[in-house]
Amino acid sequence: MNLSHFSSAIHDFLSQYTYGNQPTELYAPIDYLMQLGGKRMRPILVLLGYQLFDDNWQKAIPAASSVEVFHNFTLMHDDIMDKAPLRRNKPTVHTKWNENIAILSGDVMLVKAYEMLMQGVEDRYLRKALQKFSRCATWVCEGQQWDMNFEQNQDVSENEYIEMIRLKTAVLLGFSLELGAMLAGADDTLQEQLRLFGENIGIGFQLKDDLLDVYGNPDKFGKQIGGDIIANKKTFLLIEALQTAENELKQELDHWLSLSEFEPQEKIRAVTKIYDNLNIKTKTEDKINSFFSEAFGLLKEMKIAPERKLLLEEFTKWLIERES
Amino acid sequence: MNLSHFSSAIHDFLSQYTYGNQPTELYAPIDYLMQLGGKRMRPILVLLGYQLFDDNWQKAIPAASSVEVFHNFTLMHDDIMDKAPLRRNKPTVHTKWNENIAILSGDVMLVKAYEMLMQGVEDRYLRKALQKFSRCATWVCEGQQWDMNFEQNQDVSENEYIEMIRLKTAVLLGFSLELGAMLAGADDTLQEQLRLFGENIGIGFQLKDDLLDVYGNPDKFGKQIGGDIIANKKTFLLIEALQTAENELKQELDHWLSLSEFEPQEKIRAVTKIYDNLNIKTKTEDKINSFFSEAFGLLKEMKIAPERKLLLEEFTKWLIERES
Repeated sequence: MNLSHFSSAIHDFLSQYTYGNQPTELYAPIDYLMQLGGKRMRPILVLLGYQLFDDNWQKAIPAASSVEVFHNFTLMHDDIMDKAPLRRNKPTVHTKWNENIAILSGDVMLVKAYEMLMQGVEDRYLRKALQKFSRCATWVCEGQQWDMNFEQNQDVSENEYIEMIRLKTAVLLGFSLELGAMLAGADDTLQEQLRLFGENIGIGFQLKDDLLDVYGNPDKFGKQIGGDIIANKKTFLLIEALQTAENELKQELDHWLSLSEFEPQEKIRAVTKIYDNLNIKTKTEDKINSFFSEAFGLLKEMKIAPERKLLLEEFTKWLIERES
Repeated sequence: MNLSHFSSAIHDFLSQYTYGNQPTELYAPIDYLMQLGGKRMRPILVLLGYQLFDDNWQKAIPAASSVEVFHNFTLMHDDIMDKAPLRRNKPTVHTKWNENIAILSGDVMLVKAYEMLMQGVEDRYLRKALQKFSRCATWVCEGQQWDMNFEQNQDVSENEYIEMIRLKTAVLLGFSLELGAMLAGADDTLQEQLRLFGENIGIGFQLKDDLLDVYGNPDKFGKQIGGDIIANKKTFLLIEALQTAENELKQELDHWLSLSEFEPQEKIRAVTKIYDNLNIKTKTEDKINSFFSEAFGLLKEMKIAPERKLLLEEFTKWLIERES
């Protein structure tokens, strides 16, 4: 058994699943978005959480898949809110159809995520799994709202930013591991340790996204390098730079942020140079490493046989070392 | 015990409930919409379904309230889709805040509806209650999508229209009664009979809405008489008229439907006169009565002591005879 088994089991389950048929305007967008693909990171984490405690990970496939449906629901609605034209280089649902259809299809996806989760959870874990899922779903919405608030807010601190990405991104990775562990019968302490492990990995993962946007290898990074700089996106790098820049460097940074017309490559070069001067790359890498270390410290503490941990370690290292 | 006890118990529960605090942009719209009021018809139906079988209806208050939260979630999202500026004479959420906030607050409301329902349901009914709730939520979304499709479709049949309002409006009334009965320990047959009773009442109720828009008493009807006529809204009356009008009457109706500029009162008078000529009022009343009769036939069949049925009969008659 290895990671590719997990990945193809999730793929098989999701590709045979019927969300509904009529009206097609409601269900075609769900099939479309789910077929755009992705790393299926979250359901794989559910299966990884399960196999730490029990070999019959196939039992957790429907529950694991429900987390992917939930994640894609958030993408469908977030893309409306962000006015994003593309997702994985294809038109977003609200672009291909329209906003109303994207709102309503997303609503149904959230309901279908609950249904799929229920289908995959035995009675004895049903209430707890649904409560934790709902708590996590609430956090993810809160994170998205903070993210939208921060766009309008000039004065976001590093801690506020990390709390935002924790809610928007990391808690769902934490929940995925926790859910897998729960369904395999792990005790509460281990479930909670795995949840925190997943949250720390998630925060590190998101900070790495911020880093790769500026310092990624253009040949490997999926998106265009510097996209966040062009959009003045409040990433960890920009927040750190705004906090530490002084005198001319501060003036120069403010200048680039204030320009409404500019040559994109020139702005990317200039802002990257400011980041270089402020040592932002190292500071961000240190921060990322602190979250990954925290996570691996937790994993080490967990009372699980070391050989059982290998697969989760392998997957997490792949996540950490990715260049896109 | 009477209907006003039900109503104030729901009011008390909902007004002390905290959906969340931060970020306020996410939670203030929920409080705002829930405080706009309403008949609280759906939670009252849950309590009525419960008290048919058990006196401790207080036990069903949280579950009953969850149906109201779900209903208001659909209102928040429907108002975006319909571009409605007002709800109960107050600005809609997307008008008072913005569309993104209305999307995301609505999403959280759906999650909170699930949480509240779980809180209100004992373990032995949990899976069934949540499955039926999810099925109903899916139907409501399907109904809304059909409704949007019909706006673009010149050729909607009476049966298609009734199926649309069944999904969009009636199934939630059916589910409310079914849920109440389930939580009070009623057997499956009775739950199903009550669900169908609620659906029939719901369809009749919605058709009455269509009727009142044209033939309501202006002093009692909450909205402006003729609003549907001005907007060319495909109500039961218009669908019936389009099907039965011939020759000059058909031409005249098509003419009024095609005008983009008109004097509102003149259009209302003219279309109402066409309806009068086609006997649409009686035809609609007959249709409404057929659904109400079907419902009361089902109620009569149900193996419940007649005195237990009195309160549900009283409430339903109030619904049927309402003039607004």
